[in-house]
Amino acid sequence: MEIVFKMKTANKRGFRTSFCAAAFAVASACASDGARWIWYPGDFETHHAEVVQARRLEWGGYTPVIWPQYRAYPIVRFSKTVNLAEPEEIDVWVDGQGSFRFPWRREGNMTENHATFKLPAGKATLAFVVQNHATFPSLYVRGKTVKSDGTWSADWLDAAPRAAGSSPLFTDPAQVPSVWRLATEPKKAVSQRRTARGLLADFGEETFGYVVFGNVTGKGRVKVVYGESEKEALSDAPGQADVWEMLDLQASSACTQSVSRAFRHIHVIPQSGDVDVASLSMLYEYLPLEYKGSFRCDDARVNKIWDVSARTLHLSTREFFLDGIKRDRWVWSGDAYQSFLMNYYLFADNESVKRTLWALRGKDPVVRHINTIVDYSFYWLVAVHDYYLYSGDEAFVKAIWPRMKTMLDFVFARCRADGMYVHKPGDWTFVDWAPKPLVNTEGPVAVIQMLFARALESAADCARLAGDADAARDLSSRMAELRAKVVPTFWSEERGALVHALDRNGRQSAQLTKYANMFGLFYGYFDAARRERAVANGILGKDVLPIQTPYMRFYELEALCSIGRQADVLKEIRSYWGGMLDLGATSFWELYNPTETGDAIYAMYGRPFGRSLCHAWGASPIYLLGRYYLGVEPTKPGFAAYRVKPSLGGLKWMEGDVPTPSGPIHVRMDAASVEVTGNGGEGELVLPNGRTTRIPPRGKQRIAL
Amino acid sequence: MEIVFKMKTANKRGFRTSFCAAAFAVASACASDGARWIWYPGDFETHHAEVVQARRLEWGGYTPVIWPQYRAYPIVRFSKTVNLAEPEEIDVWVDGQGSFRFPWRREGNMTENHATFKLPAGKATLAFVVQNHATFPSLYVRGKTVKSDGTWSADWLDAAPRAAGSSPLFTDPAQVPSVWRLATEPKKAVSQRRTARGLLADFGEETFGYVVFGNVTGKGRVKVVYGESEKEALSDAPGQADVWEMLDLQASSACTQSVSRAFRHIHVIPQSGDVDVASLSMLYEYLPLEYKGSFRCDDARVNKIWDVSARTLHLSTREFFLDGIKRDRWVWSGDAYQSFLMNYYLFADNESVKRTLWALRGKDPVVRHINTIVDYSFYWLVAVHDYYLYSGDEAFVKAIWPRMKTMLDFVFARCRADGMYVHKPGDWTFVDWAPKPLVNTEGPVAVIQMLFARALESAADCARLAGDADAARDLSSRMAELRAKVVPTFWSEERGALVHALDRNGRQSAQLTKYANMFGLFYGYFDAARRERAVANGILGKDVLPIQTPYMRFYELEALCSIGRQADVLKEIRSYWGGMLDLGATSFWELYNPTETGDAIYAMYGRPFGRSLCHAWGASPIYLLGRYYLGVEPTKPGFAAYRVKPSLGGLKWMEGDVPTPSGPIHVRMDAASVEVTGNGGEGELVLPNGRTTRIPPRGKQRIAL
Repeated sequence: MEIVFKMKTANKRGFRTSFCAAAFAVASACASDGARWIWYPGDFETHHAEVVQARRLEWGGYTPVIWPQYRAYPIVRFSKTVNLAEPEEIDVWVDGQGSFRFPWRREGNMTENHATFKLPAGKATLAFVVQNHATFPSLYVRGKTVKSDGTWSADWLDAAPRAAGSSPLFTDPAQVPSVWRLATEPKKAVSQRRTARGLLADFGEETFGYVVFGNVTGKGRVKVVYGESEKEALSDAPGQADVWEMLDLQASSACTQSVSRAFRHIHVIPQSGDVDVASLSMLYEYLPLEYKGSFRCDDARVNKIWDVSARTLHLSTREFFLDGIKRDRWVWSGDAYQSFLMNYYLFADNESVKRTLWALRGKDPVVRHINTIVDYSFYWLVAVHDYYLYSGDEAFVKAIWPRMKTMLDFVFARCRADGMYVHKPGDWTFVDWAPKPLVNTEGPVAVIQMLFARALESAADCARLAGDADAARDLSSRMAELRAKVVPTFWSEERGALVHALDRNGRQSAQLTKYANMFGLFYGYFDAARRERAVANGILGKDVLPIQTPYMRFYELEALCSIGRQADVLKEIRSYWGGMLDLGATSFWELYNPTETGDAIYAMYGRPFGRSLCHAWGASPIYLLGRYYLGVEPTKPGFAAYRVKPSLGGLKWMEGDVPTPSGPIHVRMDAASVEVTGNGGEGELVLPNGRTTRIPPRGKQRIAL
Repeated sequence: MEIVFKMKTANKRGFRTSFCAAAFAVASACASDGARWIWYPGDFETHHAEVVQARRLEWGGYTPVIWPQYRAYPIVRFSKTVNLAEPEEIDVWVDGQGSFRFPWRREGNMTENHATFKLPAGKATLAFVVQNHATFPSLYVRGKTVKSDGTWSADWLDAAPRAAGSSPLFTDPAQVPSVWRLATEPKKAVSQRRTARGLLADFGEETFGYVVFGNVTGKGRVKVVYGESEKEALSDAPGQADVWEMLDLQASSACTQSVSRAFRHIHVIPQSGDVDVASLSMLYEYLPLEYKGSFRCDDARVNKIWDVSARTLHLSTREFFLDGIKRDRWVWSGDAYQSFLMNYYLFADNESVKRTLWALRGKDPVVRHINTIVDYSFYWLVAVHDYYLYSGDEAFVKAIWPRMKTMLDFVFARCRADGMYVHKPGDWTFVDWAPKPLVNTEGPVAVIQMLFARALESAADCARLAGDADAARDLSSRMAELRAKVVPTFWSEERGALVHALDRNGRQSAQLTKYANMFGLFYGYFDAARRERAVANGILGKDVLPIQTPYMRFYELEALCSIGRQADVLKEIRSYWGGMLDLGATSFWELYNPTETGDAIYAMYGRPFGRSLCHAWGASPIYLLGRYYLGVEPTKPGFAAYRVKPSLGGLKWMEGDVPTPSGPIHVRMDAASVEVTGNGGEGELVLPNGRTTRIPPRGKQRIAL
């Protein structure tokens, strides 16, 4: 048995450079051969969630997240049992320090980040222990037949063995997964001018990237002010612009930032030294994504709204689905939940959904709700199941199930004895920016119970998929019990709607809110009679508290669509989103109030430029138009079966694509006909008159109306 | 109200260098003024435990620890409420990214690692949030009256507010606590010679430090082989020397290692290129410690044993109390427990004990026993209480109590219903290197129950100190219940001793082991009659399994001392430790077997150089001589009261010091008299005839025998 052990000759201390250079030659020679970097599942995302969310600048400094952060396992064992027909040479790379355990050999651990081993023929379990105390351990193995991928196992003493995590973004041994920079391309400013104190550039639209300082002379410190509006970029006095930083520049240096940021306008103001910057450009940074969904109609304003929504979603779909790209740059579960839904109708990018779900959940133990918000934990649980429905990706459900279970254990430990969830110290019950007494009540809030029940239902299904029958049974029975309590507890026969909550004495609150009645509608809590009254009194009624956020407005418009009021919703889309366009928006905002004028449109949270002008939840027309106008939704996982229920809502014609794992479903409709091209699955077409017909799996179908 | 906010002008990206340089000037001007770097308690130790223990080299590669590792909190909030008589300027440094929350001001977070703030007069709570995702967050604040120290509070969402952690080693703002290098001084080799393949140097004794490669010509890779013996340094073939690494050297570079290692002999063997090394020296690296304890007697061999023990303990007392300095370099609870005891009679260095206790315990959740070893968890709990007894440091007990509690919760969750601890899957029951079936039994092991009861007793006392009366009550009652079961369960009237264990059916095992009877003796489980029989049959009996390790031999010799057999123990010390000296030992070993000859003395674990020749547990004469010959022990915390029960054990005379928080207790004894100098506390002198007398608090006392 011949054993070959070659050590690379690079300098150990400076390994990063030499390692990349050496590995690149190998990678170029044999790209995309199936091997991937692997890690303990979730650790890549846990690590990068820390890195990405640590970049928030506010009031001139870094602002850490306001929820617990988790860290990756510092030591992981990767293993795989192989049975080789003949001896095989493997190349092994580690990000960290590696130590191998081959059954036939003890001497020869890795002191370098790359080594070559010759494996003898026969059956054996290969095991590599990798330690990385700064980021997270990962491994890359490539031989003729032996390749690191999701068929390997990852474990360590405090982590159960699981299928290793990986990403199609990290298939190159030269690109270690602990260092992650998205794609970039150079872009020029559309205009620039000298101000009284510096240089101001306009990039023409909301964007994201690294500022490139051109024709720098002298040396010194500059203040860089990031503006989503020109006004913001010009307002750098204390308490004005939210996001600015100090950079030291000098003529000979590269003069590009190390951290990318969001802006449309850049204002560079020299602070010290004799530095001068004569021109500004940028490296636009983005996640390469395919635009698989589409929408076009006869109304140019609606088409423009769809386009700007798509741009808004793309700008905020990055390492993870972020909320607002300039200010927070954080991953919020409720915000991400809506991005997931939009994504299914635009990019259908599974990887971004999976990364975000891992990032949101973090690791064990669970000590707070996700983002500290009760409803956000429930949305997270529902989102896993939604993802399964849209993607059919059973492997992911199995991989993340253990974290769903510990999340649920946390929730159950805080539950009331009757199974309802009531606000606890340390919780933030968000729902909407409703007045606090409405959400942090001392009794149960109706909409929270409905989200909870939906989360239990989703989790029960995931438990079944993961083969945890006991948990599935327990979750289903908890769900049924809780669900059965909602209407008897919160329905007011007198008001003809669900009330918002109970008070501490168990009495129904006087306040009606739309939340309970909207979610009651989605989740099917009403019989026909109650349904009609809930809409009339609980959603459209006059003494109902109005929706506060575009975030909750998403669900309101969805509720209206779900009861066939597409025409009303289209008017709302044209005026609310169209209103932002009229004010020059190039991406959609965190909040828009048609009554505001002047600089008030930039203000929020008591700060003059506190409002995010590129906020993922602003992109909801993507989802609404795909889901309720083109009318496409999966009814079996991965669109193995689906329903198309198109509705023009006042448009003369519309057409578009909804992506599915087996290709797009194309829909075209006008007053006279509907055309649908299926994806190969079992499709059902629901016509405006209520008649249903089967969509043949292949080819374009045209049905006259 | 004037607010001054000055930003330093250093380059942000290269902050470390500029920050250090700038901070140094400040530090030099106002050293030791009471300010310290502060962190979340335990995080400094958790981080450095990872760093230090990741340095183990074995078989040519890094070998990660075999127990779960924890990581520091990445975000911590430091706060303090101050009431200033007049405005005050403070200098603030952060290791990481800082964000301040002063109630009167929102703008002006820190983008640099240093800033200056002017605080207004009056009462306010200062709060700094620091994030550090690579190491751990820490803060340093210095004003005229406002200074960061243990009076500040540290917390974050998933960590309860606690008194901030700090160390007297980190009082200089220029020295961030995430970067920690011990003191060094240059040392020359005592000899060096060319070998067939390279250059071999001998440093004359076991040592620790950075190899300095002198007169390097050319450029290339060398193999550096670390030998505790010359034979080991010369044996670099695969499967031979344990610890070696490859380094790239060239003429112009500094040619010093970045990681320090243990060795006596260094063998440098060129591997590639035209590199040549013409001379070797080193930077000796050590923890500066004061030798507070001392021992001298008429027997030169015993004096030499004490000196080499002291050197052995000093070499292994570093960032933490390590086990063996060449091979493991790890922190093992059982090994550390003995180092603590030796330390109390030599350095009395509280900081090293506290650091090691934090490092061993790590953070929550507890998923395995400490080092995965059942008995090591119990030793850890006892060690906290021992430390309190020797130091009187109540603040530490309060700080670590929450981690004791979660450690105990872990133990209780695995306990048998009757309160006994029985080996569980995932546990390693060590006790001694006894045959596995003896320790991993399916029934309870006697010595484990006794350690458990002692741990409960210690923890109960700590709970009381920490103000957790409920826990104290619960622990005391568990302890009493368990303790009451030991003799009825394990005493064999027939054998006249405690048996080792019960089998799975609850029947007493046939095997007698010394462990049960030794610990029964220490912990007072026997009445006078049983005591005598336990010694005769269970410790000195002929069919008792012999002790396997010098580690367990520590307790055996202690047991013998505790029953007055100092003369026998002294003979054993002279032959066992003296035997190592006769073989040229310059530090004491992991194992010594007088029957071994030739190269066998270096072998262990089936490896030719697997034995550690500088192992902390080899230094136990320090403890035995101080505790049982000079005879000094605390009877109240911090030696507020103590007992001196000297015993010559066959020596003609002896004298020495035992350190206490209020100064050394000096003892001198010969056949004619005992002289004791007290430390100011309540001392009791027990004379050889059993008579006791009070030691006056001040001045030398001489009592004729």
